[in-house]
Amino acid sequence: MEIKVLHQIMDWNEDVSDEVKSTLADHRICMINVMGSPGAGKTSLITSLIEKLRADYRVGVIEGDIAGQVDAEKIAALGIPAVQLNTDGACHIEAMSIRHILPELPLDDLDVIFVENIGNLVCPAEFRIGESLRITILSIPEGDDKVEKYPLMFTDTDCLILNKYDMMPYFDFDENRVLANYETVNPGAPLFRVSSRSGEGIGELVSFIAEQIRKAGA
Amino acid sequence: MEIKVLHQIMDWNEDVSDEVKSTLADHRICMINVMGSPGAGKTSLITSLIEKLRADYRVGVIEGDIAGQVDAEKIAALGIPAVQLNTDGACHIEAMSIRHILPELPLDDLDVIFVENIGNLVCPAEFRIGESLRITILSIPEGDDKVEKYPLMFTDTDCLILNKYDMMPYFDFDENRVLANYETVNPGAPLFRVSSRSGEGIGELVSFIAEQIRKAGA
Repeated sequence: MEIKVLHQIMDWNEDVSDEVKSTLADHRICMINVMGSPGAGKTSLITSLIEKLRADYRVGVIEGDIAGQVDAEKIAALGIPAVQLNTDGACHIEAMSIRHILPELPLDDLDVIFVENIGNLVCPAEFRIGESLRITILSIPEGDDKVEKYPLMFTDTDCLILNKYDMMPYFDFDENRVLANYETVNPGAPLFRVSSRSGEGIGELVSFIAEQIRKAGA
Repeated sequence: MEIKVLHQIMDWNEDVSDEVKSTLADHRICMINVMGSPGAGKTSLITSLIEKLRADYRVGVIEGDIAGQVDAEKIAALGIPAVQLNTDGACHIEAMSIRHILPELPLDDLDVIFVENIGNLVCPAEFRIGESLRITILSIPEGDDKVEKYPLMFTDTDCLILNKYDMMPYFDFDENRVLANYETVNPGAPLFRVSSRSGEGIGELVSFIAEQIRKAGA
């Protein structure tokens, strides 16, 4: 029974996702869905990207959280339009919520919107939200077995970021294991080694994202 | 519509959870539901606990994963009865799955069963599985804002473990923030500072768990 219901919800979600996508295309906005475990470093990475991108592009942020508004406050403090989307217990963001919240952002004055999804390696991957680009973050402290254990998240992403890469010396993390598994489930997809704290690898990621923003704006 | 369906599933889940609880009580088994983010260190902690507990208690393990059997193989290699429960995409374990899989374990010859839930700080907290004890693990690299962001997981647990505590020097982790938030949502509940790698704090946690096992066996 449960599976049947899930399919119904997901079909409906896909329709709304297409609608959101079309709204964003009208405004030539690139929307980026940022996913990863709790504590993978999603907010810090978005903050680092904003610092590098804001000179050339107009950035907005939708901060998804089960509860609270800690992250939206951090982003707003940077002078960036930010809205907080509280899911009130739900473990992922659905397209319907994005449709509701989009008018709260100044769409005519944005080139890119980062959506920080709920910290979760499972359900967010199942729900398209009208995004142009999906980014999955795996941080080094989480361990090297995550692609095997949570395959959908790594299959349905447009790129993988190995975050907190400066922590490699302190953890037993077999990078080759991750690379091999990622290549198996998502052949040829790009990978970036990044540390938001040290700034390592941010440059290449910014170039990749800027290219996606330009595509959406063309 | 979605919320209504969820309530239906959850009411039904509670009934099955009570049934599992009663089966376990008949066998005087303490079942421990171990929850936390992907990479919080659930398997390593269970392994450390098995090493300390096995001299005095007969231990079994149910390993929950979306896919694969990496973790059940690790436990079975220790000579401990282990079964792998694959949720095939679902982000949490339900009581029905435990009812199905329990007969695969030698219930007459066990004092305690550890259930490693799916790596997720959200949904597992919503589903009782017939457990006697709930353990929530938060690892230091995940950050100090998790109690605010995922309150239910920290409200509905019987104890909180700050894991990878040996990593404190490498991360900006404000322990007082976590303690204050935890005390707010779950007043008086116990907390343990542990490192599975260094063995720090494992002794106190073992004493606490042994007490729960003895209660269930009495």
